[in-house]
Amino acid sequence: MSAEPFLPTPAPAPRFGVWLVGARGSVATTAIAGCAAVAAELHPPTGMVTETPDFTSCGLPPLSSLVFGGHDTLDCPLPKRAEHLADGGVLPHGLPSAVHAELVAADREIRPGGPPPGDTGRTRDQWIDVFAADIRDFVRRQDLAGAVVINVASTEPAPADGALPPSSLYAAAALRAGCPYVNFTPSTGLHHPALAPLAASSGLPYAGRDGKTGQTLLRSVLGPMFLQRALAVRAWSGTNLLGGGDGAALADPAAAAAKNAGKERVLADTLGATPEGEVHIDDVPALGDWKTAWDHIAFDGFLGARMVLQTTWQGCDSALAAPLVLDLARLTARARQKGLSGPLSELGFYFKDPVGDGPSSLAEQYTELRRFAERLRDGADADDRGTRR
Amino acid sequence: MSAEPFLPTPAPAPRFGVWLVGARGSVATTAIAGCAAVAAELHPPTGMVTETPDFTSCGLPPLSSLVFGGHDTLDCPLPKRAEHLADGGVLPHGLPSAVHAELVAADREIRPGGPPPGDTGRTRDQWIDVFAADIRDFVRRQDLAGAVVINVASTEPAPADGALPPSSLYAAAALRAGCPYVNFTPSTGLHHPALAPLAASSGLPYAGRDGKTGQTLLRSVLGPMFLQRALAVRAWSGTNLLGGGDGAALADPAAAAAKNAGKERVLADTLGATPEGEVHIDDVPALGDWKTAWDHIAFDGFLGARMVLQTTWQGCDSALAAPLVLDLARLTARARQKGLSGPLSELGFYFKDPVGDGPSSLAEQYTELRRFAERLRDGADADDRGTRR
Amino acid sequence: MSAEPFLPTPAPAPRFGVWLVGARGSVATTAIAGCAAVAAELHPPTGMVTETPDFTSCGLPPLSSLVFGGHDTLDCPLPKRAEHLADGGVLPHGLPSAVHAELVAADREIRPGGPPPGDTGRTRDQWIDVFAADIRDFVRRQDLAGAVVINVASTEPAPADGALPPSSLYAAAALRAGCPYVNFTPSTGLHHPALAPLAASSGLPYAGRDGKTGQTLLRSVLGPMFLQRALAVRAWSGTNLLGGGDGAALADPAAAAAKNAGKERVLADTLGATPEGEVHIDDVPALGDWKTAWDHIAFDGFLGARMVLQTTWQGCDSALAAPLVLDLARLTARARQKGLSGPLSELGFYFKDPVGDGPSSLAEQYTELRRFAERLRDGADADDRGTRR
Amino acid sequence: MSAEPFLPTPAPAPRFGVWLVGARGSVATTAIAGCAAVAAELHPPTGMVTETPDFTSCGLPPLSSLVFGGHDTLDCPLPKRAEHLADGGVLPHGLPSAVHAELVAADREIRPGGPPPGDTGRTRDQWIDVFAADIRDFVRRQDLAGAVVINVASTEPAPADGALPPSSLYAAAALRAGCPYVNFTPSTGLHHPALAPLAASSGLPYAGRDGKTGQTLLRSVLGPMFLQRALAVRAWSGTNLLGGGDGAALADPAAAAAKNAGKERVLADTLGATPEGEVHIDDVPALGDWKTAWDHIAFDGFLGARMVLQTTWQGCDSALAAPLVLDLARLTARARQKGLSGPLSELGFYFKDPVGDGPSSLAEQYTELRRFAERLRDGADADDRGTRR
Repeated sequence: MSAEPFLPTPAPAPRFGVWLVGARGSVATTAIAGCAAVAAELHPPTGMVTETPDFTSCGLPPLSSLVFGGHDTLDCPLPKRAEHLADGGVLPHGLPSAVHAELVAADREIRPGGPPPGDTGRTRDQWIDVFAADIRDFVRRQDLAGAVVINVASTEPAPADGALPPSSLYAAAALRAGCPYVNFTPSTGLHHPALAPLAASSGLPYAGRDGKTGQTLLRSVLGPMFLQRALAVRAWSGTNLLGGGDGAALADPAAAAAKNAGKERVLADTLGATPEGEVHIDDVPALGDWKTAWDHIAFDGFLGARMVLQTTWQGCDSALAAPLVLDLARLTARARQKGLSGPLSELGFYFKDPVGDGPSSLAEQYTELRRFAERLRDGADADDRGTRR
Repeated sequence: MSAEPFLPTPAPAPRFGVWLVGARGSVATTAIAGCAAVAAELHPPTGMVTETPDFTSCGLPPLSSLVFGGHDTLDCPLPKRAEHLADGGVLPHGLPSAVHAELVAADREIRPGGPPPGDTGRTRDQWIDVFAADIRDFVRRQDLAGAVVINVASTEPAPADGALPPSSLYAAAALRAGCPYVNFTPSTGLHHPALAPLAASSGLPYAGRDGKTGQTLLRSVLGPMFLQRALAVRAWSGTNLLGGGDGAALADPAAAAAKNAGKERVLADTLGATPEGEVHIDDVPALGDWKTAWDHIAFDGFLGARMVLQTTWQGCDSALAAPLVLDLARLTARARQKGLSGPLSELGFYFKDPVGDGPSSLAEQYTELRRFAERLRDGADADDRGTRR
Repeated sequence: MSAEPFLPTPAPAPRFGVWLVGARGSVATTAIAGCAAVAAELHPPTGMVTETPDFTSCGLPPLSSLVFGGHDTLDCPLPKRAEHLADGGVLPHGLPSAVHAELVAADREIRPGGPPPGDTGRTRDQWIDVFAADIRDFVRRQDLAGAVVINVASTEPAPADGALPPSSLYAAAALRAGCPYVNFTPSTGLHHPALAPLAASSGLPYAGRDGKTGQTLLRSVLGPMFLQRALAVRAWSGTNLLGGGDGAALADPAAAAAKNAGKERVLADTLGATPEGEVHIDDVPALGDWKTAWDHIAFDGFLGARMVLQTTWQGCDSALAAPLVLDLARLTARARQKGLSGPLSELGFYFKDPVGDGPSSLAEQYTELRRFAERLRDGADADDRGTRR
Repeated sequence: MSAEPFLPTPAPAPRFGVWLVGARGSVATTAIAGCAAVAAELHPPTGMVTETPDFTSCGLPPLSSLVFGGHDTLDCPLPKRAEHLADGGVLPHGLPSAVHAELVAADREIRPGGPPPGDTGRTRDQWIDVFAADIRDFVRRQDLAGAVVINVASTEPAPADGALPPSSLYAAAALRAGCPYVNFTPSTGLHHPALAPLAASSGLPYAGRDGKTGQTLLRSVLGPMFLQRALAVRAWSGTNLLGGGDGAALADPAAAAAKNAGKERVLADTLGATPEGEVHIDDVPALGDWKTAWDHIAFDGFLGARMVLQTTWQGCDSALAAPLVLDLARLTARARQKGLSGPLSELGFYFKDPVGDGPSSLAEQYTELRRFAERLRDGADADDRGTRR
């Protein structure tokens, strides 16, 4: 952004698209409103890792260069959605009106999602084409230097048959449109055998899946603590209470199963064994966009002494997820610019069930993330060192 | 311990002394009884980091080679103390009788501590001489390859004037007797300006202070989590309920102040700032040797969303501390054998307020600890790389 | 029990039988061992309401007059069962040997339960006859003034068809043998339409069902608090972690459903409405006989302010249930002696799902219980005032 | 409120004054704004006990008949104070503007409080005269049928010497002005020996002290539960985290001591003994008007089994207190109208440290409160039955 002397008209800074699947949801709305608010310095960038000192000179696109669009099956306009979030305490009062222009602009770039349940009007491949065309139009019309596609839609049930579920259609469309793809949800996305060849040949980077925002974030620091101290975890039980759309979606046992698989993977990976215990996800509409997660960890110390750690996490998922979505948009846009391709395992810091083959403790994932950021600097040769596949 | 072929009588394995200040306390009794129980394979080595795979071939003395003695001002015999601990659930029922011989043997090596409050019979320097002579006698009589001195006594009040408090007399005696010194308590020990020259010139390694066993252990993994995720911790409040001797000792505000300083240092170091909030330590005799620590962490997420994490830790301090004491005995005995000297900052994993200049997050401390263990291997040249001072 | 002067040989005090269904289970073993221990003044009668001052002169049979027997399908001898409970911390170490004679005596009075699953050797009515004969033999052989039958067996799944489940066979046998019946479990027992005529015509008192020992006990005091303060409970969610046999039994969804119905009834009754929220029961064998129940209550205050109460209850179900079982044995034995019959709704203090039609708040139930005790006094005319039916 | 037929112009309904000491504080502002909002049916009367069915026909003055005024040493206008509370989530957004007229009207009736620390301009008696004149002016100017004075100011430190503290000056002024007095705080108020003759001779009813809104409310239902179940509470420890002005006021140890005395009295009264354990009150400004109270209760069950109950209460003190203040205003205004005088022990339901001699369990206090309401009915002869003194 520094002025370039002697050139009468500096080239305009490149702008990058962020195409959100589920663009009218709580996470998307919070990300769009928050990006505008932080860019305008109305709020500090709390929760955005890419705004901390280690990431400031890695060539990441500035927040002011991000342009939002996306797919959604709903049609509640973003400004109205933002008002609802402000009523529920997710967004500060006054914010929706302060960033009204940006919400309206993003709203104009939202295209209808699909396919509707039971749809037979188009083949799966035709849907991919439609979605890819939407994304390409967005890039062209907005004159963007590139775009990334991020899935922030509600968790979909694990597909019963081999057919591509909607999340996979969007993922395929991203690659078909030449865009990096990030799966912030537990839905299938690129994790479908039929998409493996496309992912491998696309030459595009991708990342996921299932953003690590609350209970699992905690587990990814507590699990290693027990392991490092040689304490024997005997049972790890958890209950999640959540309202909002997510609570309702996860009340579907198939969707909950997808979600829980990620949570349990974190425990198994960090503890080296799977302890006793279950995880429950309850839909509690009274909690609105807020979530409470209780964990009860029974462990043994020296000579079999029985001990217990309990944690209660009361968080707002949208406020936890949105800054990470902005981080991921910037990191993958930059990774694409630097010519990286394939699974970005170095982004495991953000996910419950990361692509590729990285460490599972948050501390090690953070070290990886900072190394990754180093590679994104101007002058660093990202390709030489290769990405893990 | 490998058999040496062709030699008719193998040299006996060297034995190492562990001289405990506070040798009749809960931690010491648990360490002595537990060492015997684990060496005899009555119990797995839960909680002992030096028994995990990364530490098995670093030349650490085996548990069966450790010989216990120490100072104490109390005179309850160890076998009786162990029975009390079994009644309180700290030791398994049946353990005191199973390791009775080892308890009796250690009990025989306990010498009177001091000085009694208000004592004027000896100068400080004379007390140091008496203590050092006790330690040297122990090493000679037991024909030990060396000994380490570890302070596991109750926290003493921060000294009001410049005089050396008892913990510093023991520390000086350790060095005078040629032994590494480890301070597992928040007491002054070697942290006294008058002892700095002695510590510097002794050529001996030392470590401390204040074992990180419960609430602070948790803080050392949770603090980094908030920092790495760029979440803004606004207030971190804590209450500790504990019975046993420790509860009574810490009911003394001066002793509690020493303890709390360490806890708060961990927060300040890992968060990069000191949040609002206090820490309380309550003496609750009804809890016996068990401790409950509640932490309440108020933090801000994106756009100022208010969130809360609460943790409740219910642990047995003696069972948490004892295996770490055994770890430290083995690591410092080996460090001495390898010729290391000065502050062992790489042992920060074990302490709230570590000597030297190391990282404060548990994950990084664990990495340091494993590197340290590498340097202790036969063949590794510990001196070349130097210890941080 | 006062000495009667001038009579050379006082009539021996009457003895009462306590016939336990599930006589080798944790609750039964704890009740039998504890009755002996308290009668011998080895322990204070903590947890026994009938040993508090309001109940001392109501003519209840003394603990030393109780004689135990029962049915069980298992064959682990009571002394061995008691040792297991002592290893798990439910009974004090040393207690099983101190009351060994009493455990052996009770063990001798345990008869095989049934019917085994899939049994076709006897009709349901024949099983009732067998069980009733066992009880009558016990009373005759021991020369008892009477006996009460109390079901403390594991929760059985709700019966799928109309057939009498085992718990109902025992209940019918109790009445057939002329004994009051108490259902301390959520199983069907007398709550079967086929048994209604028998219950009505038996002239015997009965009580139940589902002992209120932990989470529901709490709910029965917290629910009224919210109601009395006009606070609007929006969601009440709960998770129970329990090991022991109970955890495994309740891992069966049908058994859990029976249990949860009682819990939710307490909420609906005390709040006047059913809030959002679910209750989970998880089998966590690592917890042994201990249980942890977490409740999360989201409520609204003035002008819709959102507030939360959380409770965590860590209890030992057997230690909570056993003294109540002894209470119930004494109260129903005395009620029978006083000629009471029908549902003892005044014992609602003890149950999640009480028979008859009483209040649901613990405080009001306690008032009812004390009134009931008044009626049991010598001289009080229990019949005149009638029992609620 | 019933229409009186045959009279051409019905007499206007009488209006009652509510004179708040601390009229610009959070509790007062919430009470004034909330009274207007509920009277206008903008919100349901959640948290107001006097709006529940048992209280509807007791002749209590309707909310729309209440007129507010008071004393305060601060000068932030009520509408602005209400905006702050809305920003902090205590009042709903939009409420301050919806009830702006009522806030302005009350603001106009607020007079300067006093005396300033170190004041020597007036004698104590002169201050009482000034305050009493303020109250009388209010009643006269507004043409009120009467007024009650309620202290909702920040807790004052317990007075060091025998001098009347400010809270006692206001209390004396209330009586001098012929108004019932209610002390919703732990401050001295009428509990000063010098005021006893005045209280006795005034012929006015009074009530207090220290509103029971959160942790102590819970204790007043949990304490009786343990007692009724004969469970032995060994230690009851508590920590309160609170921001707002209350947190700062209670950071003064003298003020905290006054507050804690009430909390501990509830335990001692309901348990029949004082268990081990302390209560901490921490000022945590980050929590704003919200409060978190953690209680840890260690208790013994049968045969000494160790159990624990923990509670975490997250509430908004202003939202909890305000509806109770409205309740008390109505109840004492009506009590005055019915000619009651002296300590209203039947209002113990509302207080930690009630005047007079009533029960201490919430359930019994609720029963008393309903009986009291019966006595307030038109036609009921309040005087005949007398108040407890």
